[in-house]
Amino acid sequence: MALLFYSTADSAKVWIPELKRQLSHHDIRQWPDIGDASEIDYALMWKPEPGVMASLPNLKVIFSIGAGIDHLVKDPDMPRHLPLVRMVEEGLTAGMTEYVVMQTLYHHRRMLDYREQQAEQRWEPLPLTPCWDRKVGILGLGVLGRDAAEKLAMLGLDVAGWSRSEKRIDGVTCYHGDAGLDEILRRSEILVCLLPLTEQTRGILNADLFNRLPKGAMIINAARGEHLVDQDLLDALASGQIDSATLDVFHEEPLPGNHPFWSHPRIILTPHMASITVPRTAVASLVDNVQRFEAGQPMKNVVDLDRGY
Amino acid sequence: MALLFYSTADSAKVWIPELKRQLSHHDIRQWPDIGDASEIDYALMWKPEPGVMASLPNLKVIFSIGAGIDHLVKDPDMPRHLPLVRMVEEGLTAGMTEYVVMQTLYHHRRMLDYREQQAEQRWEPLPLTPCWDRKVGILGLGVLGRDAAEKLAMLGLDVAGWSRSEKRIDGVTCYHGDAGLDEILRRSEILVCLLPLTEQTRGILNADLFNRLPKGAMIINAARGEHLVDQDLLDALASGQIDSATLDVFHEEPLPGNHPFWSHPRIILTPHMASITVPRTAVASLVDNVQRFEAGQPMKNVVDLDRGY
Ligand SMILES: NC(=O)c1ccc[n+]([C@@H]2O[C@H](COP(=O)([O-])OP(=O)(O)OC[C@H]3O[C@@H](n4cnc5c(N)ncnc54)[C@H](OP(=O)(O)O)[C@@H]3O)[C@@H](O)[C@H]2O)c1
Ligand SMILES: NC(=O)c1ccc[n+]([C@@H]2O[C@H](COP(=O)([O-])OP(=O)(O)OC[C@H]3O[C@@H](n4cnc5c(N)ncnc54)[C@H](OP(=O)(O)O)[C@@H]3O)[C@@H](O)[C@H]2O)c1
Repeated sequence: MALLFYSTADSAKVWIPELKRQLSHHDIRQWPDIGDASEIDYALMWKPEPGVMASLPNLKVIFSIGAGIDHLVKDPDMPRHLPLVRMVEEGLTAGMTEYVVMQTLYHHRRMLDYREQQAEQRWEPLPLTPCWDRKVGILGLGVLGRDAAEKLAMLGLDVAGWSRSEKRIDGVTCYHGDAGLDEILRRSEILVCLLPLTEQTRGILNADLFNRLPKGAMIINAARGEHLVDQDLLDALASGQIDSATLDVFHEEPLPGNHPFWSHPRIILTPHMASITVPRTAVASLVDNVQRFEAGQPMKNVVDLDRGY
Repeated sequence: MALLFYSTADSAKVWIPELKRQLSHHDIRQWPDIGDASEIDYALMWKPEPGVMASLPNLKVIFSIGAGIDHLVKDPDMPRHLPLVRMVEEGLTAGMTEYVVMQTLYHHRRMLDYREQQAEQRWEPLPLTPCWDRKVGILGLGVLGRDAAEKLAMLGLDVAGWSRSEKRIDGVTCYHGDAGLDEILRRSEILVCLLPLTEQTRGILNADLFNRLPKGAMIINAARGEHLVDQDLLDALASGQIDSATLDVFHEEPLPGNHPFWSHPRIILTPHMASITVPRTAVASLVDNVQRFEAGQPMKNVVDLDRGY
């Protein structure tokens, strides 16, 4: 059985040895040296060129290197009859939770204002909102949203979350569906987006949504650039409806040099680094699924293509 | 029974009503309108002028508004025979944990480098250290150090702590005493100071200590300015022995305008705001001790003046 590794963003120098070590009975190949394409059973991919998946005639499972699968389904020739597995692994989850906790606390504790104070050599302690009075809302209560919500709740913040189906999470107020969206927006002073990109969620962070938040709310988008309507955020920052934002993802990546986000004083911008798949733990998760597949058992984290995530 | 509130840093507008509400059978007075000094039984204080405590002839207990008591014991006329109670309350603990978690993650995730990238419109994701490979050390495992250590461990970081006496904390490697200091320094890539200021800990963050850390370590001082030898930090930043630092406390506060910390690109400076006593929860903690005292029971969080904290 052969597995093809395809990524220009992830270090093959780390991934290939890890795959060979943990999947030692399989033949590990690296794009573009794929050998006989008909021998490839599994593909582990990040942002493949359109058509590559369809060029592997005996492909059996497509594994995404990232949690999102938008980079795969946008290939019109993706073989939709094959199981598509998204990445769920402890390193990726922990990294996202670190990022969300850090950025949430950064906004909660008004660190952008303190940064400005330091630049101006101004000493001015600001009123502090106790954690139990700070309302945080997380859009998406999947693998990542749920972990971030639980950790923020453990730190004492007043956390709510929103998902498609109904949920129950200790210490977290759970909302779902359209009616639930209204309720979570009304309360959230800090709003975190951890939704997958689907036809329903594309452009969800727009002027209408911003206006349903309390005035001066803060936004963290660590999901996908296409969730956000860029100009609507700039307008909401200008009006003060939104106080500040952290953005890790963008319509075009790398973000073009002339984009106003780069130099906006109320935007913290990071280069799609909120979380990165960790090879050792990710390959362990892949191996578990390969073994399930080869034993004829159901795999974990298979994407529902009709639902879109 | 009368209680005197004395602080120029904390809002009397919030504290006095809270004291009157929760301590309704007591007479609440506010400095400098103290009335008959001989009627004052309790003093709740932050940075009183030297001599004020000694001027209250029937004072029975001194309560500190903050966790530290250095602002009281530096008064040579402080009545050392009276019980001195430091502040322990959930709001103060939660606030410090927020600050330490936020700043630790900020350094862990190299946000100073990303901030520089944003300023230069440069897009360059940096290698990520998984949380389980990141070694954090906390000096001081008291009320604040212990809570911060536990929360960082829950986030998956590899956390150790150091105290005077031996400790056991789930998920945290505990060191103590002089030999333990060597061990915790050798391993700590991020070092957090949450020690009380005593004769033993004054100036502990000095060149010798920095040299015992791994090269490129990061420092967070949220305890007292006098723990740090300022010039030693500047030298260690210049040599690269220390990569970056977060400082909330200083020898002189407000930090004077000409101090090099203000404009240092590798220093994050905040105006002694890491944590602030929250009136509602703090008064609840005070009331508990007043009731204990009046019932002849031992109070909580009484300072051992010989030990110095
Ligand atoms: N910036 C980065 O570095 C980075 C790294 C990793 C991942 N990500 C992004 O994070 C996203 C989330 O990852 P995940 O593993 O947590 O995904 P997941 O486990 O599939 O969870 C998705 C969550 O979103 C909810 N949801 C989906 N569509 C919805 C809708 N129309 N209305 C309301 N809720 C909806 C789902 O609700 P149900 O629970 O009801 O199904 C679920 O709770 C990924 O898709 C990826 O885009 C970004
Ligand atoms: N920046 C801010 O906004 C802010 C806010 C609040 C507090 N603080 C500072 O934080 C400090 C700590 O507060 P806390 O409530 O956690 O104090 P605490 O409960 O008294 O804890 C002090 C800890 O330090 C350890 N320690 C003391 N002397 C030591 C020595 N010579 N060697 C090794 N360990 C030593 C103690 O060891 P043992 O456990 O063995 O006794 C204890 O673990 C306060 O004193 C204050 O200065 C700053």
